[in-house]
Amino acid sequence: MRMYDIIKNKRDNKELTKDEIEFFVKGYTDGTIPDYQASALTMAIFFNGMTEKETAILTLAMANSGDTVDLSQFENKTVDKHSTGGVGDKTTLIVAPIVASLGCIIAKMSGRGLGHTGGTVDKLESIDGFNTSLTNEDFFEQVKNIGIAVIGQTGNLTPADKKLYALRDVTATVDSIPLIASSIMSKKLAAGSHTIVLDVKCGSGAFMKTPEDAKSLAEEMVKIGKNNGRNMAAIITDMNTPLGKNIGNSLEVIEAIAVLSGNGPDDLKFVAKALATEIVALSKNINTKEASELVENAISDGSAFNKLKEWVVAQGGNGEWIKNPDNFPKAKFCEDIFAENDCYISSMNAEEIGISSVILGAGREKKDDTIDMTAGIILNKKTGDKIKKGDIIATLYTNNESSLKSAKEKFLKSLELSDIKPQEIPLIYEIVR
Amino acid sequence: MRMYDIIKNKRDNKELTKDEIEFFVKGYTDGTIPDYQASALTMAIFFNGMTEKETAILTLAMANSGDTVDLSQFENKTVDKHSTGGVGDKTTLIVAPIVASLGCIIAKMSGRGLGHTGGTVDKLESIDGFNTSLTNEDFFEQVKNIGIAVIGQTGNLTPADKKLYALRDVTATVDSIPLIASSIMSKKLAAGSHTIVLDVKCGSGAFMKTPEDAKSLAEEMVKIGKNNGRNMAAIITDMNTPLGKNIGNSLEVIEAIAVLSGNGPDDLKFVAKALATEIVALSKNINTKEASELVENAISDGSAFNKLKEWVVAQGGNGEWIKNPDNFPKAKFCEDIFAENDCYISSMNAEEIGISSVILGAGREKKDDTIDMTAGIILNKKTGDKIKKGDIIATLYTNNESSLKSAKEKFLKSLELSDIKPQEIPLIYEIVR
Repeated sequence: MRMYDIIKNKRDNKELTKDEIEFFVKGYTDGTIPDYQASALTMAIFFNGMTEKETAILTLAMANSGDTVDLSQFENKTVDKHSTGGVGDKTTLIVAPIVASLGCIIAKMSGRGLGHTGGTVDKLESIDGFNTSLTNEDFFEQVKNIGIAVIGQTGNLTPADKKLYALRDVTATVDSIPLIASSIMSKKLAAGSHTIVLDVKCGSGAFMKTPEDAKSLAEEMVKIGKNNGRNMAAIITDMNTPLGKNIGNSLEVIEAIAVLSGNGPDDLKFVAKALATEIVALSKNINTKEASELVENAISDGSAFNKLKEWVVAQGGNGEWIKNPDNFPKAKFCEDIFAENDCYISSMNAEEIGISSVILGAGREKKDDTIDMTAGIILNKKTGDKIKKGDIIATLYTNNESSLKSAKEKFLKSLELSDIKPQEIPLIYEIVR
Repeated sequence: MRMYDIIKNKRDNKELTKDEIEFFVKGYTDGTIPDYQASALTMAIFFNGMTEKETAILTLAMANSGDTVDLSQFENKTVDKHSTGGVGDKTTLIVAPIVASLGCIIAKMSGRGLGHTGGTVDKLESIDGFNTSLTNEDFFEQVKNIGIAVIGQTGNLTPADKKLYALRDVTATVDSIPLIASSIMSKKLAAGSHTIVLDVKCGSGAFMKTPEDAKSLAEEMVKIGKNNGRNMAAIITDMNTPLGKNIGNSLEVIEAIAVLSGNGPDDLKFVAKALATEIVALSKNINTKEASELVENAISDGSAFNKLKEWVVAQGGNGEWIKNPDNFPKAKFCEDIFAENDCYISSMNAEEIGISSVILGAGREKKDDTIDMTAGIILNKKTGDKIKKGDIIATLYTNNESSLKSAKEKFLKSLELSDIKPQEIPLIYEIVR
């Protein structure tokens, strides 16, 4: 078999065989196939796409290119939730304890933040003592004991995807639905959970800018998962506006605690509950109405909150911080942003707000940057809100006073104001099952 | 400027700017742009093509990537003829002396044979003493004195094209009309002649299999040349059947001498005269009828033949071999191929016949192979001919007796026989001006 023929077949829109795709993934991972042939292939895929069968095979081959997590001891109870990345998106911190309190098993490796979106592992580390680097043994032991553990990525997971993604990033072949879908899903398959619910974001703060593109990606990923024997669903949610009011690591943990305490902003509650409902329904094979009731009860009777506390303590975190979030340290400097006129917020560019929060210290521009756990933004007003002159629109938090000026400028640029109340954008566009 | 954006623009079907194309050619030649980005770009070009403007800019940038031949001292009298490669194609040996005898200037660098097609430089070297490695000084001196010199390629001509072609060859991006056209034409532009006439072959022995594809390529190349200020024409000729009867280096020189002596096979005469006519018409800015008469006279009055002899002698060749081709050495072994039945030859696969001739020793499979100048094939019958049982179809010549068996097998495989006379295929499909 020759890589030349594989490129030519894809170029000529012929369906690649299992052997061809596996030959490519193996050869590219071990370096026998050079970058210049791989980039020619990915560009041909950009133009000609991949069939459902091809995408499923590519994803599995990439999942199997390195270590995989074996969760078979937990039978089919394991669940995973993945977000394509958004600003203010702390739903994992809410959804994971809810579903774990209902008997689902969360044994999750999660990412760190990069660019304008945050990562769950960073957020968890804002809790005093929380350890995201458990040994394999401790990880599995904790999952067995309390049904939940979340750690940073370890081992050599999906090296084929890592190498291919880095290549696509410099050859303008990232924007290909089958390649995006197989990249995300290869990591999910390697992570081993039986039920996978995806939160596919769309809008200004997301990779997918339109609901149509988000739906195509969601459908592709759901198909891949199903074709590889997983329970699958995807919820297409809005990311034109940040989710909830708090952006930044400890600020987001505090907001997640609020939701699990029965409070918190409506949009965040709505999306988090929808994700939890979908996971519970799929995992327990019950209908959405029953699942939704279980989720509501888990919050109202305190069992989800208790599961969060139990989880945090199990991973070395200080449970008192969960009981009383006032324990979280505050940033040294803050600045309110006031409205200059009476008007409506017609839109907030979520990506720009995410970048503003990174400027304050809440995220990384480069992989090695350190994070200010207390830094971030609390939104007092959001898209669609009427504001009066002098109202506080948002407050910026940081330990680096000199960042306030440019963060504020960036934030103000993210806002569009209008005299007319804007049309409401749905929070959830569609659920793909 | 970033190569990433250049790839993305072409991927998104935006016209690349002059700056972008020149940035790519310069960066790829000097190694600052890696192969994996170049192959992504060429694959995007495969799918989205290039505009006339883009192709002209790319071609000129590649032409200027290395040495160029300055023929300005000869004003606008310089002419060049290029064939996309065929079996039995010795037209340069006929056309060059004809047009030189009519006052056109031929200062030509020519290629060696590789694969199933031969090269002019190899053919010339089958003449005793002929020197294809003149110094620059001697080359120009000869052109000034007698209006014609043909040498092998020297210097660092079009390094961008060399590097890009090698990459395209392993990434399935050769079959792109704008890339083929710019590759050929970059070499022609660098070679410096003012008038360029292209012989674009189509059929089983050519890169372009159909007249339609050949026409697209011809039009693209003519446009590139015109956009770079050259006098251009392209003749689309048939290469389903070898041109003329003789295949192999000295055999082809002998056949070229025959044509310039007023003999030789009709198909070869027809194509060679058409090419010469086109060159003379363009170069002298006269109509085709006038040019055709000049060409006919140059043959019938012996001036073209005399120019060939003058040329050969000027480059150190033995003029007696031209006067009397019996001087050419003969191969030690030969084998006639006889017809087994009464029938018609309905087709000859020119590529297979070319390969048969390479097996006999007339060509190279690899760059370093040596050539048997006397080896080759003389076709006694050609496509459309009626043959009777026992007729000689062809004779194979070689100094390597052991090659006869497999060369014969290959030759026989190239033939299709039929009871019905096949439809005639035109020798010249079209002239693109």
